[in-house]
Amino acid sequence: MLIDGLQCGHFTRETFADLRQADVGCVTVTCGFWEDAVESLDSLAKWRDLIAANADLVATARTAADIRAIVASGRTALLMGYQNAELFQGRIRLVELFAELGVRCIQLTYNNQNSLGGSCYEDEDSGLARYGRQVIDEMNRCGMLVDLSHVGNRTTMDAIRYSKKPVAITHANPDSLFPHKRNKTDDVIAALRDNGGVIGCATYRNITGDEYCRTAEKWCEMVARTVEIAGIDHVGIGTDRSHNFTKPDYDWMRMGRWTRGVDLGASPASRPGKAPPPDWFVALTDIALIEKGLATVGFSPDEVAKIANGNWLRVYEDVFGG
Amino acid sequence: MLIDGLQCGHFTRETFADLRQADVGCVTVTCGFWEDAVESLDSLAKWRDLIAANADLVATARTAADIRAIVASGRTALLMGYQNAELFQGRIRLVELFAELGVRCIQLTYNNQNSLGGSCYEDEDSGLARYGRQVIDEMNRCGMLVDLSHVGNRTTMDAIRYSKKPVAITHANPDSLFPHKRNKTDDVIAALRDNGGVIGCATYRNITGDEYCRTAEKWCEMVARTVEIAGIDHVGIGTDRSHNFTKPDYDWMRMGRWTRGVDLGASPASRPGKAPPPDWFVALTDIALIEKGLATVGFSPDEVAKIANGNWLRVYEDVFGG
Repeated sequence: MLIDGLQCGHFTRETFADLRQADVGCVTVTCGFWEDAVESLDSLAKWRDLIAANADLVATARTAADIRAIVASGRTALLMGYQNAELFQGRIRLVELFAELGVRCIQLTYNNQNSLGGSCYEDEDSGLARYGRQVIDEMNRCGMLVDLSHVGNRTTMDAIRYSKKPVAITHANPDSLFPHKRNKTDDVIAALRDNGGVIGCATYRNITGDEYCRTAEKWCEMVARTVEIAGIDHVGIGTDRSHNFTKPDYDWMRMGRWTRGVDLGASPASRPGKAPPPDWFVALTDIALIEKGLATVGFSPDEVAKIANGNWLRVYEDVFGG
Repeated sequence: MLIDGLQCGHFTRETFADLRQADVGCVTVTCGFWEDAVESLDSLAKWRDLIAANADLVATARTAADIRAIVASGRTALLMGYQNAELFQGRIRLVELFAELGVRCIQLTYNNQNSLGGSCYEDEDSGLARYGRQVIDEMNRCGMLVDLSHVGNRTTMDAIRYSKKPVAITHANPDSLFPHKRNKTDDVIAALRDNGGVIGCATYRNITGDEYCRTAEKWCEMVARTVEIAGIDHVGIGTDRSHNFTKPDYDWMRMGRWTRGVDLGASPASRPGKAPPPDWFVALTDIALIEKGLATVGFSPDEVAKIANGNWLRVYEDVFGG
């Protein structure tokens, strides 16, 4: 059973059926990137309708126990997440309200600096700002997982050290394996390990590189090297797979409303559009190759279980509570 | 005739009558601190009603020519301003719309870091962020004055250098005269001079200090020392006077919705509440003492006119256009 720390895009009944077929037990979905508070409520409400219409395949999870029960019922658990804490619109008291509505994972910054801290794509990173500290306190208290994937390295380090609960890098890879602004330096990953958190290894080609995209085994070698940095208890999967994305979706994801110009996000200038999926991960159901691949590159069954789901479940249990 | 680069608080008919009596020809008013886009429209709309109800005393100005015409009609011109560019809510295209509605001056950040840049009260200042550059481009294009008063020193320097139009520090003093996070270092003021901008000297006791609050002449000596740093063409008045503020107003100004804790803003811990006005500036009409005080400390009539109104008018003319 696999837990995927991050997917995004337009999920359909077919997506959910594929997740079932591939034995994916839990996915953190992206309910928003740049949306404000009301738009984020709209998105959450639409997700509720979508899940209700597919209640035979998926259900919303609020706790680790929920995930286990949903998996036992033969369905896939979905954790509600957002990739930008600006959805609170500077209102510290909204953290509790979104938590009460079932939101379980929020990234402090998306691609731009915000009132919480610096992003990986800014020239300079201020570190964790005053309001960012307040939000982490509230997320800790309300049982929300702090996601640092797109956050700048300095703010990531500050947040790891500041948080009283384990935090996550739900979808990124080690910068020492594939150098990219979106990936994380070894010192940040070591700090994450000391914090008890998890890094979810990504399959998004722009931040993985062609070499690790050739075969599932190659990609699992990257996971094995990540384990060498983070330790066996601190690595999970966070594919960053996007479903049914078209150009308007990429434009929104990258430019939002913050520029009239063109921003390429994680893409190299040589390939500005959609990045092809890994050669081994063309259909969503190919995700099932990961657990086999982890065994092939030498992980024991216990270790495979930790990477596939156990490490995420431990963090979810600790952060979400009962 | 005096131009005041910044006032805030609850203006009433009595406030407007006092401004007339003291020969204040133009005031930039604060329509918001932490408000979002719709709340900022609400505030602007309320200001329109207030101005309409007092059309014999005040009128909205959109250009320097408007200011001259309103003054010639025996009234006080009001420039619509906000102290936080987060009112755009990350939407670059709203700059043009707020400009079209008559907004003429916006501060890039208020007391906290935001998506544009760093604030003077943060531990670290990132400098001007990606979106901050986009907003300055738009403000330049749409005829809005960039205000840097509460902005961190590094972001202030970046913005001064980045802006193609003169910018303003509407309400602050030189840090070399009264050290305070809200005040500006000499190198920033020198860069402002080279940019063609203006610093408006403030009378707010927390950032002015008791010594310069004793008499109007003492305060005008501070202005004279500011002129030594910035040059005679780059100093104006920006009192930061607040009208009819009570504790809930200060709480909003300082804490907004970003913290459940207590933040003191510019106040020292020894005096957390409202700072007393300068000894010489108890009634709003005492503002008329400034022009006399400037003559007393040795400025020629031409120099007094530059500080009192000419420097602001020059910048407004350049930035707002026709």
